[in-house]
Amino acid sequence: MKVTVWNENRHEKKNPKVSEIYPEGIHGQLASFLEKAGFETGTATLDEPEHGLTDEVLNETDVLVWWGHLAHDEVTEDIAEKVKQRVLDGMGLVVLHSAHFSKVFKKLMGTGCDLKWREADEKERLWVADPTHPITEGIDEYIELEKEEMYGEHFDIPAPDELIFISWFEGGEVFRSGATFKRGRGKIFYFRPGHETYPTYHNEEIQKVITNGVKWAANTATPTPVRGNHQPLENISTKA
Amino acid sequence: MKVTVWNENRHEKKNPKVSEIYPEGIHGQLASFLEKAGFETGTATLDEPEHGLTDEVLNETDVLVWWGHLAHDEVTEDIAEKVKQRVLDGMGLVVLHSAHFSKVFKKLMGTGCDLKWREADEKERLWVADPTHPITEGIDEYIELEKEEMYGEHFDIPAPDELIFISWFEGGEVFRSGATFKRGRGKIFYFRPGHETYPTYHNEEIQKVITNGVKWAANTATPTPVRGNHQPLENISTKA
Amino acid sequence: MKVTVWNENRHEKKNPKVSEIYPEGIHGQLASFLEKAGFETGTATLDEPEHGLTDEVLNETDVLVWWGHLAHDEVTEDIAEKVKQRVLDGMGLVVLHSAHFSKVFKKLMGTGCDLKWREADEKERLWVADPTHPITEGIDEYIELEKEEMYGEHFDIPAPDELIFISWFEGGEVFRSGATFKRGRGKIFYFRPGHETYPTYHNEEIQKVITNGVKWAANTATPTPVRGNHQPLENISTKA
Amino acid sequence: MKVTVWNENRHEKKNPKVSEIYPEGIHGQLASFLEKAGFETGTATLDEPEHGLTDEVLNETDVLVWWGHLAHDEVTEDIAEKVKQRVLDGMGLVVLHSAHFSKVFKKLMGTGCDLKWREADEKERLWVADPTHPITEGIDEYIELEKEEMYGEHFDIPAPDELIFISWFEGGEVFRSGATFKRGRGKIFYFRPGHETYPTYHNEEIQKVITNGVKWAANTATPTPVRGNHQPLENISTKA
Repeated sequence: MKVTVWNENRHEKKNPKVSEIYPEGIHGQLASFLEKAGFETGTATLDEPEHGLTDEVLNETDVLVWWGHLAHDEVTEDIAEKVKQRVLDGMGLVVLHSAHFSKVFKKLMGTGCDLKWREADEKERLWVADPTHPITEGIDEYIELEKEEMYGEHFDIPAPDELIFISWFEGGEVFRSGATFKRGRGKIFYFRPGHETYPTYHNEEIQKVITNGVKWAANTATPTPVRGNHQPLENISTKA
Repeated sequence: MKVTVWNENRHEKKNPKVSEIYPEGIHGQLASFLEKAGFETGTATLDEPEHGLTDEVLNETDVLVWWGHLAHDEVTEDIAEKVKQRVLDGMGLVVLHSAHFSKVFKKLMGTGCDLKWREADEKERLWVADPTHPITEGIDEYIELEKEEMYGEHFDIPAPDELIFISWFEGGEVFRSGATFKRGRGKIFYFRPGHETYPTYHNEEIQKVITNGVKWAANTATPTPVRGNHQPLENISTKA
Repeated sequence: MKVTVWNENRHEKKNPKVSEIYPEGIHGQLASFLEKAGFETGTATLDEPEHGLTDEVLNETDVLVWWGHLAHDEVTEDIAEKVKQRVLDGMGLVVLHSAHFSKVFKKLMGTGCDLKWREADEKERLWVADPTHPITEGIDEYIELEKEEMYGEHFDIPAPDELIFISWFEGGEVFRSGATFKRGRGKIFYFRPGHETYPTYHNEEIQKVITNGVKWAANTATPTPVRGNHQPLENISTKA
Repeated sequence: MKVTVWNENRHEKKNPKVSEIYPEGIHGQLASFLEKAGFETGTATLDEPEHGLTDEVLNETDVLVWWGHLAHDEVTEDIAEKVKQRVLDGMGLVVLHSAHFSKVFKKLMGTGCDLKWREADEKERLWVADPTHPITEGIDEYIELEKEEMYGEHFDIPAPDELIFISWFEGGEVFRSGATFKRGRGKIFYFRPGHETYPTYHNEEIQKVITNGVKWAANTATPTPVRGNHQPLENISTKA
C-alpha cells in the first residue's frame, strides 16, 4: 500500500517555531510515522512542479494525506480537480486540520466548510463518538491535547456518514473533529488536530488515529460500476 | 412562500411529442400544479437573460425547482455558482430527473452523479422507503408509472441523508429515486421521474410528491451560524 | 393535534426544591407551555391507573412527551410495550433528559442507552449541529444554561438519523444532546436538558426546542405499509 | 478469529428438498465455506442444550452468524437477551434471510422487522449500492440468483447506517437486502438471500459477501467506554 503525504510546506519556511517542532516539515513528520506503521510512504509539496502530484504519483497513491493552510489558493484548479477525480475513482483521502478549507475538500463536500476558530493555547479533548470504528481502534475514550487551536461549530459540512470524534475546548466550544465521508469509490477521513505551532503530530495517540484513518481509507477491490446506456434482462419483454 | 421553476425549455422547442404533452413547457406544467397547491410560483428558462435567475429572482425564491437535460453546459459557470451559493444560504432545491447531471447538483454533491439509463417505455414502480417522511405524505406504498425512462444503480451520489423512494424497472434495475440532502442551510430533494416524452408531470401522485418536496425544502427560520474568529467564555481562563 | 405529557412525578413529591421550581409538577410545566403553543395537551403520571396511559389516551395521542428518572422499573412491561407499539404505529415521542433510561426508549433503541453523568451545577452550552432542521427553528447558534447536570459521551445509542445539538460542559465533556430517530412509522426526538433541581423547563429557548420537537414528531398522513404475502405484477410471468 | 454459525436446523429435518441441498444442514454449509476462508468456525443449533450458545461459546465468539425461520419463538428469552448483550459488548452479528424475524434482531433493531414476501421461484438481482464498502469487495455490480423467495419493501427496520445492496425481483418489488447497523460496540450485517429450498449458500458470490460480512463485523480493539458518575477536569473550577 502506497501513501503520499502532501503539505503546502510554507509555515515551516517562515516561522522558526514551526520548523523547530517539525525540522523535516509537517509532511516529513507525518511520513515518518506512517512509514514506521508499514506503509510505503512518499511526500509531495506545493512548490514542486505540479505540486508534486504528477499523474504518475496520483495513479500509484492508494491514500493521500493532505495538510494546507496559508496557500490553498495557490493549488492550481487543474491539480485540485485531478485529485478530486482520483478520490472519486477510489483513492483514499485523509484531510488534516486547516485543510478543511482546501480546494479538494471543498469540491468533494459541496459546502463552504467554514468554522469558528481561536488561537489561545487551549486544552482540547477529543471524545470517541464511535467506539466500533476501526479508526478508533486502540484509542481510549478520549485523547487530550494540552494546547491546540480551537475549532468550533457550526462546521459547514454535509452530515458525515460516520461521526468518529467530538472535540471539547476550554473556551466553550465543541467540534465534530473526526468524520468520514464516501464520495464515488473513495473514502475520506477528516481529522481536526494539527495546528502548526503545536507538536500535535508527535503525539502517539494522534499518530495512531491518522494511521488507522489511512488504513480505513484504502480502496477495496470492488470493481468500478458501469454507467450509461444499459441493456435490459433478456427474458423480460418490455412494453415498447 | 415563493417558488421558482427553472427549465432549460429546449425539448419543447424541438420535439412536437414533448410540446404536445407540455404545451406550456415542462416549467409551465410544474408551475401550474404548484400554483394550485398555494405557492406563489414563477418560472425561469435557459434562454432568458441570466437564464431568468437574476439576483432579485434568486433572493426572493424560497424553493427552486430545476429541470434540465440537453443543455447543462450552456448554464454559465457564474449562474451555477450563484445558485449553489443561494442553496447553501438557505434556498430549497428540488432537482428533477435528468437534472442529476446539472452543474448545480454536481457542485452540491461533489460527485459525478452518473447512472445507468435506457429509453424503452418500461414500467416504473417507485416504492416508499420512508413512510414517516413529509415527502411521502398521502402517497400509498408505491407509485406506478406505465412508461418511463429507466435509471439504474449505481447512482454516483453521496449516501443521502434520507432515502425516500426506491424504483423498480421492468428490465431488471433498481434506483434510489427519491433522496434528500442538506447542504449548508439549504435542503435538497432529488426526485427521478419526468422524462420529457412521457406525461409524468400530469400524474397526480407525482404532483403530490413534488408539492410535498417543495414544502419540505423550504427554509426554516434558523439564523445563519456565525463563523470565523470567536471569543471564549468569559469566566473560563485559558492556560496561555 | 393532541399532546400527552407523561411524568413519573416522584421527585416533586419528595424534594421540596423540585416542587418549588415546578409547583404543578414537571408535567404541569411542560403541558403549560405546550398548551400555550396551541396543542391540545393532557398529562399522565406513573401513579395513575395504567400510568394514565389507557388505550383511549394512547390512541388519541399524536405526540407523547416522556420524563422519568427514579422509577423506570415501576413502569409495567405491558404499558411500556404498548407505548413502544404506538410509536411504531405512528405516534411521535419526545424523550427528555433522564428518560434516556426509560423502558420505552431502550426498547426502541435496542441499546443500553447509558452515559456519563455528574451533578455539579455546571454551565451547559447546547450548540446547534443542524441549522436546517425545523427543531432548531428560531434558535440562535447555541443555548446556554447556567447550571445543569452533566451528561457525557459515550452515549450508548444507535447513530442518530439526525444530530441536532451537541452539548459542551464546563468539566470537560461533550454530549449528543439533541438527536432524532425514526422507528416504524414513528418519529422520536431525544433532548437532554431538564434535571429536576434546575428551572430548565422555564427557559424560553428550551421551551421553543421542545415545542418544535413536538411539531416535528407529529405523524404524517402516509398510509401504513402492507406487509406479508404479496401478489406479483400481473403482466410479468415468473419462471416457476 | 472465532466464528459461530447458529441455525435452527428444522427445515433440514422435515423437508427432504432442504436436506438434499444442505446435507450437513444450512449451518454446515455456512461453516464449511467460512472455515475455508480461514476463520476458526463452530456451529450451534436450536435443539442443543442452551441452543448451543453457552456462556463459554458466546464469550469466545467474535462473530455470530444467525439463520432461523420456523422456530423463532422457541429461542428462549434468556438466550436471546444474552446474545443481544454480547453484541452490545462487541460481538459481530451476521443476520441471514428469515432471521429478520429472530428475537435477537428484533431486540437490537427496536422495530417490527416485517416485510412483504412471496414464494414464486423468481429471479433476484442484488445491486451494489455502496461500491466503497469492504462487504462488496470483489463483487461485480450485481449478483443474480435464478430463483429465490421474494422479500419486498417496506422493510420495517431503522434507516441502516450503510445501505450495501438493493434487490430487484421479477414480480415488481425492491428490497434493502444488504444493510449494516452499529449497536453498542457491536456491528451487525443483515443479508437477505438464503431461502431454504434454493441452493443459495452454494453460490460463490453469496459466499464471498457473507465472508466479507463476517470480516467486517469483527470487533475492533477499542476499549469499552466507561459510563456512570464521572470526575471533571481538575483545573476547571465549576460555579457551584
